[in-house]
Amino acid sequence: MADQEEEVLAEREVFRGRRLTVVERDIRVAPDRVVTWEVLKKDDSVAVVALDEEGRVHLVEEYFGAIDGRELCLPKGRIDPGESPLEAAGRELREELGLRGDLTPLCTLSLSPGYLSQRTHVFLATGLTPDPLDGDEEHSLKPATLLLDDAVRLCGDGVIREARTVAALLLAVRSAQPS
Amino acid sequence: MADQEEEVLAEREVFRGRRLTVVERDIRVAPDRVVTWEVLKKDDSVAVVALDEEGRVHLVEEYFGAIDGRELCLPKGRIDPGESPLEAAGRELREELGLRGDLTPLCTLSLSPGYLSQRTHVFLATGLTPDPLDGDEEHSLKPATLLLDDAVRLCGDGVIREARTVAALLLAVRSAQPS
Repeated sequence: MADQEEEVLAEREVFRGRRLTVVERDIRVAPDRVVTWEVLKKDDSVAVVALDEEGRVHLVEEYFGAIDGRELCLPKGRIDPGESPLEAAGRELREELGLRGDLTPLCTLSLSPGYLSQRTHVFLATGLTPDPLDGDEEHSLKPATLLLDDAVRLCGDGVIREARTVAALLLAVRSAQPS
Repeated sequence: MADQEEEVLAEREVFRGRRLTVVERDIRVAPDRVVTWEVLKKDDSVAVVALDEEGRVHLVEEYFGAIDGRELCLPKGRIDPGESPLEAAGRELREELGLRGDLTPLCTLSLSPGYLSQRTHVFLATGLTPDPLDGDEEHSLKPATLLLDDAVRLCGDGVIREARTVAALLLAVRSAQPS
């Protein structure tokens, strides 16, 4: 990649809601050019690809308010203050699926880096055992367990369509195959 | 998937910037429970996996203001008023890469459906020929052409990490393989 010549010169908060914060950034995009872009500032999050010994992946069917619909996604959530991404992933796995597992980093994904600061740290969980923990969910989640091969077939087919879930499931399959 | 019992009861705009709009939605998430969630409302966008006859994919290296860094991504952009997703994809391909191609739908991806309404319609472009069109970009894009196999190896490795790009490249490889 080329060296970065762009530079953030200033940042002003223009909206602070309960969960969303918008800032304006003045950015030098070329030696003689400064632009002002709006950015949704949101802390990084975590997600987990939980694979059991029968070759199944443990997903969550959840209602999402921004699209007013249900999607089949990885268990995921925010990183609480003081937590590492690994600790947050372990907590979310217990809260959303009632499972504990051995976690290893799979990938870190950006979402829409033009206007969204959030990155998602994705972990692979294996060696799953039951260990539920009460979470702070404001609505019901429905665990959905399916063969990883079947989940991958549903990716991009309209059933599993959340970009991070599609990306992580396909990367998990690749990491399980001999290269 | 289960029938949807959730319902959006009301929506209020709480912030309107130049490019970002935030609304509050009152949502009935259970018969006896109404929550208020913030949603970033953003129109759907398009992205293109442009594959040439030498097995190469044409990507874009771009500076992104929300992460203050460069990433290697699919050419992508918004759908202009009056455009279909297909037309928008063809225009973005000409503006960002100077190419025209035969477009077929690959998948539709959501990003972070809990707080972001945007979906991205991804197309596969083949039969590429030069046909540049001046765009409205506020900063420089750098075309980057690499073998699809090499691009896939870079997915999730820290070089290609934008979730939609990773998801779409891996889906494109799968759609090119006999099932």
